[in-house]
Amino acid sequence: MTTTAQPTTAETSPAADRASSRVPRTVDVVVVGGGSAAETAGPRAAAAGLSVVVVEASLVGGECPFWACVPSKAMLLAGHAHRAGGSTDHDAAWSWALQRRREATAGLDDSGKVRGLADAGVELVRGWAEVERSPGGGGLVRVRRGASGPDDGPDDGPDDGAGEVEEIGWRTLVVATGSTPSAPPVDGLEDVPTWTSDEALTSDHRPASLVVLGGGAVGCELSQVYASFGVRTTLVETTPRLLASEQPSVGEAVEQALAGSGVDVRTGVTASRARTGGDGVVLELDDGSEVTGERVLLASGRRPRLECVQTQGLDVTDAGALAVDDRYRVLADGQPLDDVYAVGDVNGRAPYTHGANYQARVVADALTGHPRAGDETGMPRAVYTEPSVLATGLTAEGARDAGHEVVVAVQASHDTGRAHVERYDGPGTVELVVDAGTGVLLGASAVGPEADSWGGELVLAVRARLTVELLAEVVHPFPAWGELLLPAAESARDQVRERRGELPRPTQGAAEPAHAAG
Amino acid sequence: MTTTAQPTTAETSPAADRASSRVPRTVDVVVVGGGSAAETAGPRAAAAGLSVVVVEASLVGGECPFWACVPSKAMLLAGHAHRAGGSTDHDAAWSWALQRRREATAGLDDSGKVRGLADAGVELVRGWAEVERSPGGGGLVRVRRGASGPDDGPDDGPDDGAGEVEEIGWRTLVVATGSTPSAPPVDGLEDVPTWTSDEALTSDHRPASLVVLGGGAVGCELSQVYASFGVRTTLVETTPRLLASEQPSVGEAVEQALAGSGVDVRTGVTASRARTGGDGVVLELDDGSEVTGERVLLASGRRPRLECVQTQGLDVTDAGALAVDDRYRVLADGQPLDDVYAVGDVNGRAPYTHGANYQARVVADALTGHPRAGDETGMPRAVYTEPSVLATGLTAEGARDAGHEVVVAVQASHDTGRAHVERYDGPGTVELVVDAGTGVLLGASAVGPEADSWGGELVLAVRARLTVELLAEVVHPFPAWGELLLPAAESARDQVRERRGELPRPTQGAAEPAHAAG
Repeated sequence: MTTTAQPTTAETSPAADRASSRVPRTVDVVVVGGGSAAETAGPRAAAAGLSVVVVEASLVGGECPFWACVPSKAMLLAGHAHRAGGSTDHDAAWSWALQRRREATAGLDDSGKVRGLADAGVELVRGWAEVERSPGGGGLVRVRRGASGPDDGPDDGPDDGAGEVEEIGWRTLVVATGSTPSAPPVDGLEDVPTWTSDEALTSDHRPASLVVLGGGAVGCELSQVYASFGVRTTLVETTPRLLASEQPSVGEAVEQALAGSGVDVRTGVTASRARTGGDGVVLELDDGSEVTGERVLLASGRRPRLECVQTQGLDVTDAGALAVDDRYRVLADGQPLDDVYAVGDVNGRAPYTHGANYQARVVADALTGHPRAGDETGMPRAVYTEPSVLATGLTAEGARDAGHEVVVAVQASHDTGRAHVERYDGPGTVELVVDAGTGVLLGASAVGPEADSWGGELVLAVRARLTVELLAEVVHPFPAWGELLLPAAESARDQVRERRGELPRPTQGAAEPAHAAG
Repeated sequence: MTTTAQPTTAETSPAADRASSRVPRTVDVVVVGGGSAAETAGPRAAAAGLSVVVVEASLVGGECPFWACVPSKAMLLAGHAHRAGGSTDHDAAWSWALQRRREATAGLDDSGKVRGLADAGVELVRGWAEVERSPGGGGLVRVRRGASGPDDGPDDGPDDGAGEVEEIGWRTLVVATGSTPSAPPVDGLEDVPTWTSDEALTSDHRPASLVVLGGGAVGCELSQVYASFGVRTTLVETTPRLLASEQPSVGEAVEQALAGSGVDVRTGVTASRARTGGDGVVLELDDGSEVTGERVLLASGRRPRLECVQTQGLDVTDAGALAVDDRYRVLADGQPLDDVYAVGDVNGRAPYTHGANYQARVVADALTGHPRAGDETGMPRAVYTEPSVLATGLTAEGARDAGHEVVVAVQASHDTGRAHVERYDGPGTVELVVDAGTGVLLGASAVGPEADSWGGELVLAVRARLTVELLAEVVHPFPAWGELLLPAAESARDQVRERRGELPRPTQGAAEPAHAAG
């Protein structure tokens, strides 16, 4: 299927580039954006014999390994260890955390990832891409070398052909340009010191105090990070609870955990105006109160990056994402294009690294002759606070909107042998959303130690459309954290049976012993 | 269904006992053995209105909370923390571990568990039970109060009617007497200092050196415990690898972990003779070498406790367990008795606390009018070393013996984002045993940090008889430990596809990036 020679190294020499740019070469696949999706789809396509070019304006690997999941997780781990250790030497702990972060992000050096693409036979072209599509399919990508944005000039880096424009023809385009932090519309916010999450996760500065705007996953995680190191941290969330898109038990448990870490959690209030003052910033809230901090961390959202394709007449969702069908083909006038895919944050469907990777696997199959629909039924949603959160599938509201009659079971305390042995007395919850007629698990969430691990069972159950009748029969090893799933599954099963008019069974009213002494 | 009055307290007064013992009362259910199974089945049966008596000669809760899982896990946790902390002050760490163990085992005080039974409406009778069964069904249990074995006299405890015999009639009997440690047949072993696991887990003594006989779960766990606290520990296992009943990757990974904890692991050698000498004991091995230690820890097996029913003509398996059908009804002359169940270690089928609990739930359903077969397809087998092990279902050999053509997929390194962020470089393996024709997962094992948590997904998959085609579509959150499951599932799926003559897909030969920097 390839008509051009495969490069033997990932980055071809400037001379070769200049020569080849006169008559645009054409490759099977161009992936615009060198993040996780490109790292997943590119090598798979190349392994099947396709010629693949990845265009990246910044670091190969994208947000996750350098400015998002990985540094966040490194800082969370360091913060948990510091809190567990009980030391009040926040300076030393912070230095250690930064060291851990630098190691985890390889000092923002992507050369290992560049090598990974090269070893997989994927060509990397660094620069800013602008895409053109021919009416009959296929098209051209213009890469301005060395540029990191549409308006950038050449950079001061090594002579890699900076400023030159290379044109590459493509048969199939994969848009994987990710997303970028967006600021909430708060009056005066542009005039006070702020951080995006990316900035927070690259800065070495530990502020004396911080106001975090937004109680989603990023806001919860970063609030716990800073509070762990002695930063006076206030979290402001407009909706009545944290992680508002999840079932209520989730946000309640995380609020309890954050409060236990020293975060001042303010839910149900909206920042109406920001001004300098106090420690640095005064944020006026719509309940008349004010919160202050040295700086405001903007954790209220991200928007898809569409610049590379914005003039190509592609459909965009209300949320500003590229519209795709269930095979991740981009829509134009409502019809899927056979030669343009969009995966990862830019399509807005599952804005997580693992979502991008999954979609990339589906598209890699399509690129190599095995087209199929993606199934995001069990897409997990994780929050790496301590305790951690794993949620998947539909909330009760979402299930009702989808036409289900719903049964909800909540297990809201961590009365297990493991909690006993580990002397854990923090929150532990499991919440199951079940179709009342069939007993099929539609959605689920778990909060507790290692919930990002043991919650995987819920992800599988939702994805495989299993019933709570079966889940209540699943055995968990003693003493594993996952034992918390049993009482929730039995409660859901019994509710479904009751709706069917079946006889009560002996679990009703019988306490489940923790099987631990004391 | 009850014909006798329910007691209002769990332990009736001696006077009342003596009065009632003249004309034996009859209750719906007698559970002999007050361990986990009794704590699960008893309250469920009582909640449904049945009169239930539990007879226990020792502590309510049985082995697990006082002499097995719980103190072992407490010591393992303390040992992991000590190793992670890097301190060489083993004395202080040992003291702290003992404190943790005392807390976890409530100082061998079962009063909380006694209250648990009482609150659930279950009567407890303390003493040694001997069971008689009437030819037509039902029978009598003779409880020698205060006795902890068949030959015991009255104890010196409070006046609780010690030595008196109470007779209680039963309509249904549940034998849940558990198991007891057994010693391997090694010449001279009775003349040297030994510990059973129960003794090791109640002793406060930290020997200078220890030889552990047996490389199963208990031997692996306790070897790591002692080695963690600076005890020179030698583990001797007859078979060629640790955890020999699991797939090879499991024992190899655990051997690597134990060696990293300082355990001298000797596999494929058998102790032939024990004598005093050296630090205390010299153990001669059949390869001509010797190992020495202050003491020998016997971790080579347990045997079911059958004394209470041994004269009743019930069927016993070759392994010395009570033979049961799939509803856990005890067999006599190959036929199930409708009024005698055996659950937990005494039936030898799933000798784990969680196995006993599962079987007890099935029997509780039967007792309350909902008889059904148990399904132990996905029974988990956990080892709480660090890293931990979770295995379930069939091994490759077991699957072939059951008539399956088998595909095995192994992922034998922990190249995930989580391992990167946590700087984890220990073993991490997933091994899947798959029916080659259908792609159904028959068995699986996982080793790695939190494997006892994220391996739950494998338990569910085996129990629900899911295919690797589906498992390869399941998404794990980034960066969760469970991401290790994907490459194993994809490998298994591709092998199944290849057997079917399907076209190769792009995963073959394509590396899965760890999606982490560096």
